[in-house]
Amino acid sequence: MKLGLIQMTVVDNKEQNMTKAKELIEKAVARGANLVLLPEMFNCPYDNSCFGDYAEVEGDMTYQALSVWAKAYGIVLVAGSVPERDGEQLYNTCYIFDENGRGIGKHRKTHLFDIDVKGKIRFMESEVLTAGDGITVVDTQYGKIGVCICYDIRFPEFARKMALEGAQLILVPGAFNMTTGPAHWQLTARARALDNQVYYGLCSPARMLGDGYVAYGHSLVTSPWGEVLQELDDQEGVLVQTIDLDYEADIRAQLPLLKHRKPEYY
Amino acid sequence: MKLGLIQMTVVDNKEQNMTKAKELIEKAVARGANLVLLPEMFNCPYDNSCFGDYAEVEGDMTYQALSVWAKAYGIVLVAGSVPERDGEQLYNTCYIFDENGRGIGKHRKTHLFDIDVKGKIRFMESEVLTAGDGITVVDTQYGKIGVCICYDIRFPEFARKMALEGAQLILVPGAFNMTTGPAHWQLTARARALDNQVYYGLCSPARMLGDGYVAYGHSLVTSPWGEVLQELDDQEGVLVQTIDLDYEADIRAQLPLLKHRKPEYY
Repeated sequence: MKLGLIQMTVVDNKEQNMTKAKELIEKAVARGANLVLLPEMFNCPYDNSCFGDYAEVEGDMTYQALSVWAKAYGIVLVAGSVPERDGEQLYNTCYIFDENGRGIGKHRKTHLFDIDVKGKIRFMESEVLTAGDGITVVDTQYGKIGVCICYDIRFPEFARKMALEGAQLILVPGAFNMTTGPAHWQLTARARALDNQVYYGLCSPARMLGDGYVAYGHSLVTSPWGEVLQELDDQEGVLVQTIDLDYEADIRAQLPLLKHRKPEYY
Repeated sequence: MKLGLIQMTVVDNKEQNMTKAKELIEKAVARGANLVLLPEMFNCPYDNSCFGDYAEVEGDMTYQALSVWAKAYGIVLVAGSVPERDGEQLYNTCYIFDENGRGIGKHRKTHLFDIDVKGKIRFMESEVLTAGDGITVVDTQYGKIGVCICYDIRFPEFARKMALEGAQLILVPGAFNMTTGPAHWQLTARARALDNQVYYGLCSPARMLGDGYVAYGHSLVTSPWGEVLQELDDQEGVLVQTIDLDYEADIRAQLPLLKHRKPEYY
């Protein structure tokens, strides 16, 4: 299995974002990717004031385009996230498609990002978005894949639950910022991968300097031993990484962390 | 509060180990430490064949010496670990004393270390030791302190439970080896500290090359923001680090991870 990460620039124009996503997916596929991950809010600026305007209901045009791409390229597509409208509510949602273009699941960001680091960054997602309701693990031809979005990765219980439900690879569309990115992005990915003995793929938008939210970039893949296998810088780019589930099984056999849990004491 | 870590060499002679521990505690106290952490198995080689010979029941000579030191130096003493005999069972146990020399708790290693990394390291603690039965959090004049031992740190649920029971500082006597040490020691400490927004202190024996188990060393203190504040190399030494619980409260206010948990989904 080859995992492709699409670290794309996101602009304030949905059509341009969709065109860019398609173009970079094609590049990843040309390099052998059969499973592709897009970044958080890949078709919409990461800004509370944009989510409502960009939102669509499930099944609408963005959803249809993603389905068509998954089928056309024969890939499992974990489609980053987009603003989803459901009645009066807005969600930060990741749609997931199999290689036939069939929707096989979706994840709604469950832990909304509310942060206020003095003099550095303030962002209150909960002022606009509604939270999802738990973990997402989907069955694919490449094994079970867990999906969560950005701030969801902060909570070790969430990762553990995905691993215990059989996830062998966990994919995280995310947009850490210039405060939390350098401090926590790689650290958290490595630790979650190590603790749960799974591969992790984190996919961020490319860094765009400007007035709005500045994404850290640095999309990466970590191994079940806690190593960074590949990491992009802050610029637009595509990363393709082989995922070896035999190696994962080997790690789990040698250091059986999941077997050594003692849930009676937690 | 100043935390002192005692990274001592451990030899196959209990009296020499006790003398060395006392000597290095004095050094830490001279540098202002009022809370001192010893390493895992500080009075006994880390070897299944030694634990039985070195074991004592609670209250015996090693315990008494530790109590006397705590009172004499006016320190909270988290006494690494020693082999404890209780009836037919042996435990890997950390005794904890207040500044009056009073025993205020003990932790028995709950996750025993059984590892078999092909061609690198095999160690089966469970062949000789019995497992403890859960987390340990003690009240001290410096706040609530969680204590776990070495392999216990591998399990994020265990750390989380200590944090939820109020631990503001988690201390870990540990002896990672030359395979898992470079790969996982610092990573795990940083991630647990970050996830739970607590300070972590990890204290290892110094590296002793020889036929037996080779400890990694690298005792360290991490901040609630996931940074390494100080780290020793592999040689014998003492580390003294100021612990600032106001800073910890500040981190928890700015990025309220513990408040943002959603236990209904875990």
